[in-house]
Amino acid sequence: MNRQALIQQILSKQSFLCIGLDTDITKIPQHLLKEKDPIFEFNKQIIDATHDLCVSYKLNTAFYESMGLKGWEAMQKTLEYIPKEQFTIADAKRGDIGNTSAMYAKAFFENMDFDSVTVAPYMGEDSVKPFLTFENKWVILLALTSNKGADDFQFFKQDEEFLFEKVLKTSKEWGNDEQLMYVVGATRPQMLEAIRKIVPSSFLLVPGVGAQGGSLAEVCKYGMNEDVGLLINSSRAIIYAGNDKNFVQKSRNEAEKIQKEMSILLSNK
Amino acid sequence: MNRQALIQQILSKQSFLCIGLDTDITKIPQHLLKEKDPIFEFNKQIIDATHDLCVSYKLNTAFYESMGLKGWEAMQKTLEYIPKEQFTIADAKRGDIGNTSAMYAKAFFENMDFDSVTVAPYMGEDSVKPFLTFENKWVILLALTSNKGADDFQFFKQDEEFLFEKVLKTSKEWGNDEQLMYVVGATRPQMLEAIRKIVPSSFLLVPGVGAQGGSLAEVCKYGMNEDVGLLINSSRAIIYAGNDKNFVQKSRNEAEKIQKEMSILLSNK
Repeated sequence: MNRQALIQQILSKQSFLCIGLDTDITKIPQHLLKEKDPIFEFNKQIIDATHDLCVSYKLNTAFYESMGLKGWEAMQKTLEYIPKEQFTIADAKRGDIGNTSAMYAKAFFENMDFDSVTVAPYMGEDSVKPFLTFENKWVILLALTSNKGADDFQFFKQDEEFLFEKVLKTSKEWGNDEQLMYVVGATRPQMLEAIRKIVPSSFLLVPGVGAQGGSLAEVCKYGMNEDVGLLINSSRAIIYAGNDKNFVQKSRNEAEKIQKEMSILLSNK
Repeated sequence: MNRQALIQQILSKQSFLCIGLDTDITKIPQHLLKEKDPIFEFNKQIIDATHDLCVSYKLNTAFYESMGLKGWEAMQKTLEYIPKEQFTIADAKRGDIGNTSAMYAKAFFENMDFDSVTVAPYMGEDSVKPFLTFENKWVILLALTSNKGADDFQFFKQDEEFLFEKVLKTSKEWGNDEQLMYVVGATRPQMLEAIRKIVPSSFLLVPGVGAQGGSLAEVCKYGMNEDVGLLINSSRAIIYAGNDKNFVQKSRNEAEKIQKEMSILLSNK
């Protein structure tokens, strides 16, 4: 998917919500366990109930890999089921030497047909570039993550520059805002101001709203740009909103609450 | 596998060789393509021909993921085929927020039964710790990698300390040398001296000998410790040594050449 199509979808749906399918067999409603593929069945029902309210689905690969072959199959089926207008994210946090990153790119962009994959920056340019050779495919590079452990290395500082700022600046030489996005956690909205000075036009994928405690209004205040430039992810707060036969309605209600807040934030822009 | 069993195996085989199964369907001998599972068949024959010469096999997950379900299945079958005395490595470069890293740990340590997994440090403590809760399982944390891109961020410097040194020092608080190893590339042997000052007793997984150009003697000179403390990986130089019906003999010859050099380096220690 290209940047223009993504922006169009955001404006027409008045939403920049990404729903994270961190689907855990121990957390889905009991009645689904009798299905042949409970993980896919859960995802299917969540997608059916929410796809008009969001612009993106993010599949957290760890949850699928934890179930081995069956999980990998559920991930593939889910990806194929997602409506084509949605921006799909393989939240895989991959990255390795060049010939190996090329294989990961093949896994997510060719063998499967994700629009984007999250990539860890530690190994530098040749670990990221192989993902950038695919037309209308995206790298979403980790910059400042939402977790406590982000403090351990991402704020390492050389000459008044934090490591995550160095990652943002350096990676701008590898690709442009039509192929590179960044992960920036909602749990540190005040850092978004500094980040926007480095990457004013790039899209940011923002996890941490909801279960992790970040504020949507704060993120928009500091992070929104002329093209919106934000995908706000919520996973657990939406997909596990209910746990009975009526779970999809509760998930829809949660997604709708966020979409309505987004609609107001967009009209105030 | 525990540390003592690994050291015992190294001393009895006079080898600290790890063979990397970066198995690529486009590079294996033609005659194997008619097999039902060519990737597994190739790995099986390589393992049969080399297991007395090495102490570890490393499966590069990217190569298996690139083939989707069939690839994931070949990875599982290969892991099950590897003799139990071998130290097995899922070279997966994973790492995410706590609940997600816990799922990756489940994927590699429970759903599959690898002895270890490579982990990227960028997201800090809570992205690594879930892997450290399994008995006799190991995290192999990226410190200084063998690729050119290592220069981009791993040498970022705060107060006379490089980022990779900060990673080594900080991670020592998360686990001990019975559960944590480090990836240190063979392409920078002179840095091993500084690294050994920080982690004198830890095992190091050293890629970059062979196809990437690192020297085994140099690595041992600066990196070997009292318990040997090294696993030297070679992938392409061994597994693609031949490309005809006789390929396993050529692979064995390559592995034997390295093992003999290791045997001499061990007796000179």
